[in-house]
Amino acid sequence: MRVVTLTTDFGTGDHEAGVLKGVIWRIAPQVKIVDLSHDVAPQDVLEGALVLWRNAHYFPAGTVHIGVVDPGVGTPRWVIGGRVGEQYFVGPDNGLFSLAQDRAEGNGWPVAWYELDRPEYWLPNVTDIFHGRDVFSPAGAFLAAGVPLKQMGTPIDDPVRLDFPAPQRTPSGWRAPIIHRDYFGNLAVNLRREQINAPETVRLVVGGMTIDGLVQTFGQRPAGELAALFDSSGMLSIAVVNGSAAEYLGLDQGDWVELHYPDKPDSSVE
Amino acid sequence: MRVVTLTTDFGTGDHEAGVLKGVIWRIAPQVKIVDLSHDVAPQDVLEGALVLWRNAHYFPAGTVHIGVVDPGVGTPRWVIGGRVGEQYFVGPDNGLFSLAQDRAEGNGWPVAWYELDRPEYWLPNVTDIFHGRDVFSPAGAFLAAGVPLKQMGTPIDDPVRLDFPAPQRTPSGWRAPIIHRDYFGNLAVNLRREQINAPETVRLVVGGMTIDGLVQTFGQRPAGELAALFDSSGMLSIAVVNGSAAEYLGLDQGDWVELHYPDKPDSSVE
Amino acid sequence: MRVVTLTTDFGTGDHEAGVLKGVIWRIAPQVKIVDLSHDVAPQDVLEGALVLWRNAHYFPAGTVHIGVVDPGVGTPRWVIGGRVGEQYFVGPDNGLFSLAQDRAEGNGWPVAWYELDRPEYWLPNVTDIFHGRDVFSPAGAFLAAGVPLKQMGTPIDDPVRLDFPAPQRTPSGWRAPIIHRDYFGNLAVNLRREQINAPETVRLVVGGMTIDGLVQTFGQRPAGELAALFDSSGMLSIAVVNGSAAEYLGLDQGDWVELHYPDKPDSSVE
Repeated sequence: MRVVTLTTDFGTGDHEAGVLKGVIWRIAPQVKIVDLSHDVAPQDVLEGALVLWRNAHYFPAGTVHIGVVDPGVGTPRWVIGGRVGEQYFVGPDNGLFSLAQDRAEGNGWPVAWYELDRPEYWLPNVTDIFHGRDVFSPAGAFLAAGVPLKQMGTPIDDPVRLDFPAPQRTPSGWRAPIIHRDYFGNLAVNLRREQINAPETVRLVVGGMTIDGLVQTFGQRPAGELAALFDSSGMLSIAVVNGSAAEYLGLDQGDWVELHYPDKPDSSVE
Repeated sequence: MRVVTLTTDFGTGDHEAGVLKGVIWRIAPQVKIVDLSHDVAPQDVLEGALVLWRNAHYFPAGTVHIGVVDPGVGTPRWVIGGRVGEQYFVGPDNGLFSLAQDRAEGNGWPVAWYELDRPEYWLPNVTDIFHGRDVFSPAGAFLAAGVPLKQMGTPIDDPVRLDFPAPQRTPSGWRAPIIHRDYFGNLAVNLRREQINAPETVRLVVGGMTIDGLVQTFGQRPAGELAALFDSSGMLSIAVVNGSAAEYLGLDQGDWVELHYPDKPDSSVE
Repeated sequence: MRVVTLTTDFGTGDHEAGVLKGVIWRIAPQVKIVDLSHDVAPQDVLEGALVLWRNAHYFPAGTVHIGVVDPGVGTPRWVIGGRVGEQYFVGPDNGLFSLAQDRAEGNGWPVAWYELDRPEYWLPNVTDIFHGRDVFSPAGAFLAAGVPLKQMGTPIDDPVRLDFPAPQRTPSGWRAPIIHRDYFGNLAVNLRREQINAPETVRLVVGGMTIDGLVQTFGQRPAGELAALFDSSGMLSIAVVNGSAAEYLGLDQGDWVELHYPDKPDSSVE
């Protein structure tokens, strides 16, 4: 029994997520459907991509992840489907699945993408404004029901990729970019747990402030204090406990953070 | 495997939706349950009716839609169940299902209603304040488990109907009522896509303002601008992009909108 | 087909609830999963315990209730699992399940607890900050998949219990403690429907104010008015209609309420 997940920016107060399940179950009555998240910030493709990157691989092999974060200024190819490792993805060709693809490629898992250009796998009436219901959900449902991707579309090898700068080695440690600011003002930095030894001893320099030592949980710091840790996906996160690090530091996506090992102090912080 | 949907005004921050599923699964362990919406505005029967009208027919044949929007000043008949086309509905007799019935009648689908007056299909203890858990959910679960409606109650032919004015033809186009204002201040107008030719050329007159041409998506207009389109259910919707049309125009449910075709200008807008 | 419920303080705006379901379905693909509540106030173990006490027994026999309300200042035993009547519970050993246990003991239902100390029933990588995903969900999933509790851990007989004062008999009625203040400012009082005769005739004295007679629904009182009723679980609740009783009365958890029967007036209210 296949699982289908939904990741959207519908938010609360709307009635759009429920109907997707009706569409899916008409086509694939046996599947299980789960809301992965409907709280992606509106049209924030990167946040949706991070949600899928962090969570998709926890699902059973063969799960179909439907993504509906679609600013709609899209490419000519508006709906794609792919096998990425043991997971499947269906949604707009705007980079929403590209971080999951990064993970797959980093692990050497197979990846194959198709433009899903056969309208017989969409609803009969496609509106201009609800492609999640009219296109992405039925396509994902047919896939979960066993229709092969190659029957639903045309192979492609260049889906849109999101791209952000890699972290850079420095004499004293790392320099790494802030890649996302979430609703709460937490800052996600493109630096992973496996890249840092002895994280409790490092010094972070962020927006002119320093943070000495990463914590294991924010509960180790009092409210209002700046702190850093590896989040549950292993990515460096900077937060103000019960506050907004983005406002506190005046930093946002695109800014950079420095990390210094204690035995290699950077001159700028001596 | 039957599907059961839930449409309520419970909102977030409450713990009421989850327990309905426990009640349903004790009675009908095989059914799938889906939240259609828990974000209907409190006691807004019309909004609940619009949610069901827009979405119910996307679900598989035989789906049971349980509605819990129940201001409780109700009629003596407090719980009804019906077959409306290929969908089933269970909930209060207050008009919550009457727009879905309008759709069914417009399509010539069969409709049959029952007052569900047999307490053996409710929970043993019925509280005064949680009929969703104690009455509507068990009744809906027995229906989904295969108990025929006629075994659970008494046929009726006059369920409560919601009623709003029909759009009126004018020499230059249409005059149509605003039937709903949602949480965001968007205004729903009782005028359907199939009633309008060449929507990109019409002129709307609303609250002393004019809108020239309907858009296909609000993304075609900048933030703060007044715009109109057919929503995903095909109904005319007036919105201020990222704002409130209701506040901007000073209009609400019960006000009227004029639509003029370009070749038939109304004297008032010349 | 077993049911698994989730009760957490994740709130909305986060993406954490969805991934729990992926973890569970990888281990136990046949189970049904339902969100009982993700709106427990952050780290409010008592509120989580009340949610489970009010709702767990409505679910089918054999349901596994996973609780993730975990301030993390916990005891050495961080994960426990138990059979409590016909329901199962898995989560932190902090009292989250103790009110459900109170109900079971009050009914003479069997209770058995285990410390789930066998890491082979957790995820291979356990992070410091997401035990819901890494420990509680897999343990709950193995339980739902049929692994006996005794195989997953070590019997214990002293899980953490939450404790609050019992109501006290007075010459004129009862004196009872406020045990919880919810997000809306409603006050829950440790006094049950079955302890009160003729509730419509009693006088409550709360924070220097009096309430004459309990109502059956808040709809019987106008907005802004102080009112009391038995909530859907049968517990005395004090509210201001569309307002906050806690702010109106200046009362909170730990304060006391007096209830007087009409034929036994207390001197203080004559």
